[in-house]
Order: sequence, then structure tokens, then C-alpha cells
Amino acid sequence: MKEKVVIALSGGMDSATLLAKYIHEFFEVHCLSFFYGSKHNQYELNAAKALTLHYQIKHHHFLDLKNIFNLFESNLLQSGGEIPEGHYTEESMSKTVVPGRNSIFLSIMLGYAQTIGASKIALGIHAGDHAIYPDCRKDFAGSFHMVVKEASERKINFEYPFINMNKQQILKLGYSFYRQVPYNKTRTCYKDQPIACGKCGSCVERLEAFSQIGMVDPLEYESNNEIRV
Amino acid sequence: MKEKVVIALSGGMDSATLLAKYIHEFFEVHCLSFFYGSKHNQYELNAAKALTLHYQIKHHHFLDLKNIFNLFESNLLQSGGEIPEGHYTEESMSKTVVPGRNSIFLSIMLGYAQTIGASKIALGIHAGDHAIYPDCRKDFAGSFHMVVKEASERKINFEYPFINMNKQQILKLGYSFYRQVPYNKTRTCYKDQPIACGKCGSCVERLEAFSQIGMVDPLEYESNNEIRV
Repeated sequence: MKEKVVIALSGGMDSATLLAKYIHEFFEVHCLSFFYGSKHNQYELNAAKALTLHYQIKHHHFLDLKNIFNLFESNLLQSGGEIPEGHYTEESMSKTVVPGRNSIFLSIMLGYAQTIGASKIALGIHAGDHAIYPDCRKDFAGSFHMVVKEASERKINFEYPFINMNKQQILKLGYSFYRQVPYNKTRTCYKDQPIACGKCGSCVERLEAFSQIGMVDPLEYESNNEIRV
Repeated sequence: MKEKVVIALSGGMDSATLLAKYIHEFFEVHCLSFFYGSKHNQYELNAAKALTLHYQIKHHHFLDLKNIFNLFESNLLQSGGEIPEGHYTEESMSKTVVPGRNSIFLSIMLGYAQTIGASKIALGIHAGDHAIYPDCRKDFAGSFHMVVKEASERKINFEYPFINMNKQQILKLGYSFYRQVPYNKTRTCYKDQPIACGKCGSCVERLEAFSQIGMVDPLEYESNNEIRV
């Protein structure tokens, strides 16, 4: 019987690569995707579905958490203000922090992992997230690992294999080691529109990463961002 | 302006005492009560409502988490087997462990605390819970405290003031120091029935606590449990 891992699959590049990693390592991968009311949530979840169809993943649950996140404030949420444009690390992007998000996702993954007897839960957090998102940093992840160990009586580990990598390194890994992750099926843009804007911090970071490894992003963009070519 | 605390109010004795504690200490108390699909959940939430009415609490949110807990297995849940009878510390009671429960509750409390600018989140976990519930133990709580610190950039603390007390000590505190917590309005029984059974581990522990401090439990019980008088 294969060892089981529970991953959070947002439908973005990082979680797509995470999915590819555990398939590559012969795990039985169980994916959880969360609807939490962000502006781009529906497009993300469509991408998540496309990814599990691509990889023929049998275990994929979608969970509606909108009533929880309705209590919280963030410009990333439908209830919040405009998504800022510009670089990801800018001060304005701090308004896209969603309180409690990764803690809530990880706690649900923990409960599900206990129920199905998985040995790991995993998240695609990476070095590019650290500046603005406290719940993507190494100290946060290390603390949550201890929570997972204590709550599971040391049966489950929390892995975050991309924590020291930037987007560019994740992309390299996805293209080489994990045999062509289908990045054309992923969703990165934060805006509430089907076509990626190419201007929000999230798009800018993605385009930079493709440019830096000398690849062309297979996604269609609304604007001809000059980083692109 | 008063300092704010977010507490999980289940409607049981411990969270009722926790509520009284923070009112006594002049906090603006924000209560979250969770519907997670346990057999006794509806009765608990009625009790939680009665408690915030009693104390004239302005901020009390009820959150429906049933779709999350539907994924999990436990005999405490409506989807699970029978609630065992007998003493709380017995092996059979381990079937009432709900995977991920306190992590999920605490993560939601964390996100809400960040949104309203609270300085603390608090839970009424105590020494009597430790044997069977890993997510009620001191090591778990200490680890979660670190998660809360990291996720909030050190603005929020997680308090669990009853961690070294048993039910009897909590009850003493509630009757003396916090001026008569209305324990007649609380709900402890795990079974899916309006009147407390007096036989499940949870009832047995409660009745023992009242007996040990020489008080009569103001609740009505289905069975005349001999510990009672």
C-alpha cells in the first residue's frame, strides 16, 4: 500500500509542482482545495480541478469555507478593496494578507490526514511569499510542524519542501525533474477575471520567474507586460 | 478602549468559566461557537447562547463547520458510532477524539482576532482532557501558541489558563472567584438528547467534580447516577 500525503491544491504554480513532486515520489496524493472567498478563487479552483484531471488523481475534495472567511478582512477577499498592482514585495501587497488562512487550511488537512491515515501533510509555501505573508515563513511552518506532531501523537509530519526556493527555482524543478508540470493549466492572477491581468503582484512574480529561466509562460495575459518576453 | 479577547464558547462548564474569567478581568470578550456535527452540538450551542445572553455579550458568532467535519471520523460526530458510557479516561473514550478539532477552532479564532485587533485568543482546555485528547495537552497548546505568535507577527497570544486544573478546580473557581457562573445553563453530556444522560464519560466527570466540591449539580439528569449525591 502506498504512503499517503494530503496537500493543499490551490491551482497555482507552486501547488501544481508540489502535486507533481509527490506523484513522482510514488505517494497516494489526496488533494484538498478551498473556497474561501478570494476574488480569484473560482478560477483557481477550476485550475485545481484541471490539474487533478491531468494527473488522474482519485482523491480531491473541495471545501467551502466562505462563511468563516466572511468574518475576516483582506483586499484579497471579495468583501475587500481593490487588488493592488505592482511588485509582490511592495507595501501595498500587504493588504492581500488573509488572516489565519494557512493555519485554517493546515488544520483541516491535519484532521483529514488523521482520518485517512496519511503520514504527511504538505504545503507549497516558498521564499517569495515570506516578505508579506507571515503564515508562509519558515518560523511559522516550523511551529505548525510541532502542532501537527503533537495533535497526531507523532504520527504525521508537515512538509514544506519549497520553503527555501523562489518561484524561479520551483519552475525549474517543475520543468526538469518532475517532467513537464502542465503550467498552462495553473492560475496565478489575483484579480476577479478569467484572463490573467499581468499586472498584479502575483502575475508580475510569475512572469519574472518564467523570464528568468528563459521560458515563455504558456498562459494568455490581458496586458503585454514587458517582463514577458 | 478595552483590550479584546476571542474565546471558543462551546457551552460547557469550562468555556463558561473562561467567559466569566475574562469578563471579571474587564476584557471585551468576543465569543465564537462552532457547529461541527457532534451529537450534542445543538444542545451545546443553545447553552452557549444562554450564556452570552446571561452575561450580555455583544459579540457572539456561530460558525457552521459541518462540511469540514463531514470528512472526518469520530464517534462524537453524528456520522460516527455510539457514544461510550463509563469513565472519561477509559480506552473506549478515545473513540470520541475528533481529528483536528482544536487546531481548526484556534485557527479560525486567530484569523478573527487579527481582523478585530484582539490581543489574545483563549481556550478552556484543562488537565482532565489530557489523557485522551492530544489537542488538549500542554505541549500542543505551547506549540499552537508559537503558531499564533508567528502568524500575527507577535501581536497575539494564545492563553489556556485552566491547563493545570482539573474540572473540580475549575468549578471551585467559577463558584467563588467569578461570582456564581450559571452552570445551570451549561451543557456537558455527549449524547444526542436534550436531557443529560448522566452515564457518558463527560457526564460522569462533571458529576464527580460537583460531588468533590460538595455541591449539587443544578442540571437535570436522565439517570440517578450514584456519584450525584
